[in-house]
Amino acid sequence: MSTDEFGIRPGEEMASLPATFDAGLHFIGRLRTPWRSRSECPKNGLQTDALCTVEVDAAYVPGLRNVMGCFHLIVLYWMDRATRGLLVQQPRHADGPRGTFSLRSPARPNPIALSVVELLGREGGVLRVRGLDCIDGTPLLDIKPYYATTDSRPEAQVDRAGAPS
Amino acid sequence: MSTDEFGIRPGEEMASLPATFDAGLHFIGRLRTPWRSRSECPKNGLQTDALCTVEVDAAYVPGLRNVMGCFHLIVLYWMDRATRGLLVQQPRHADGPRGTFSLRSPARPNPIALSVVELLGREGGVLRVRGLDCIDGTPLLDIKPYYATTDSRPEAQVDRAGAPS
Repeated sequence: MSTDEFGIRPGEEMASLPATFDAGLHFIGRLRTPWRSRSECPKNGLQTDALCTVEVDAAYVPGLRNVMGCFHLIVLYWMDRATRGLLVQQPRHADGPRGTFSLRSPARPNPIALSVVELLGREGGVLRVRGLDCIDGTPLLDIKPYYATTDSRPEAQVDRAGAPS
Repeated sequence: MSTDEFGIRPGEEMASLPATFDAGLHFIGRLRTPWRSRSECPKNGLQTDALCTVEVDAAYVPGLRNVMGCFHLIVLYWMDRATRGLLVQQPRHADGPRGTFSLRSPARPNPIALSVVELLGREGGVLRVRGLDCIDGTPLLDIKPYYATTDSRPEAQVDRAGAPS
């Protein structure tokens, strides 16, 4: 945890997290992006045309079979620098504090992030993609095919200021 | 791991997973659904109209502030009965083995599943939703707002038989 970049702001609320974990994760690779710090990162993966790569560790490369049949992927990754346990937080550009589960902020009890990416190509364990927004070197957790039938909700709305309680 | 329901089939490939984990997860609640076994579960959350609930543990309820401003949510959960380390698998209805990262199967090195759900209401720490497809009691990991701008790709395609290597 890097408190300089990812610390607590006035009005925010922390939970005390349990001392032990309920399950464990294996990092299966790394994401390679042009961004070295949180401040350099785009707000989301559509605000950039940057080519990024998903580097899958050799032990997991057999799992990439058939993946080039997917035009879009869901990439799950671990926001390893994020503060955990932040339940109410003050986003930089919001007029008041927001519940963590109403935000896509990396700070959350389980800092798993997801991005929908366009798959451009594959060389062995390396996928060329567009649509990531995270810091270079971010640990990879999972890759899934994106299905328009179940994952796409073009009509979805969010009233970001709404429903405070 | 329950090998009777979630075992290995001919043609499948396992990885030997590392003996230690790289990061840990806190279960923050449970998903309540009508389904008691994998065979009862719908193939995906759009194949059912069942009302389900997301039960958030008391310690994490402050994080639900503002969540009713979202019409759709992304729910991340832990497939705690899945075989981990299965890299090539034979889906029941496919004509050959498939790489794990080309499938939404629960069996994967980090068995994190995600569903896009419609948010119907909230009473305290309980969210009423439609669109889950998992076994009753499945551990909850995270809740995120669904943004059409970044998460919806109505044009996305998957060629499930394609690109074997």
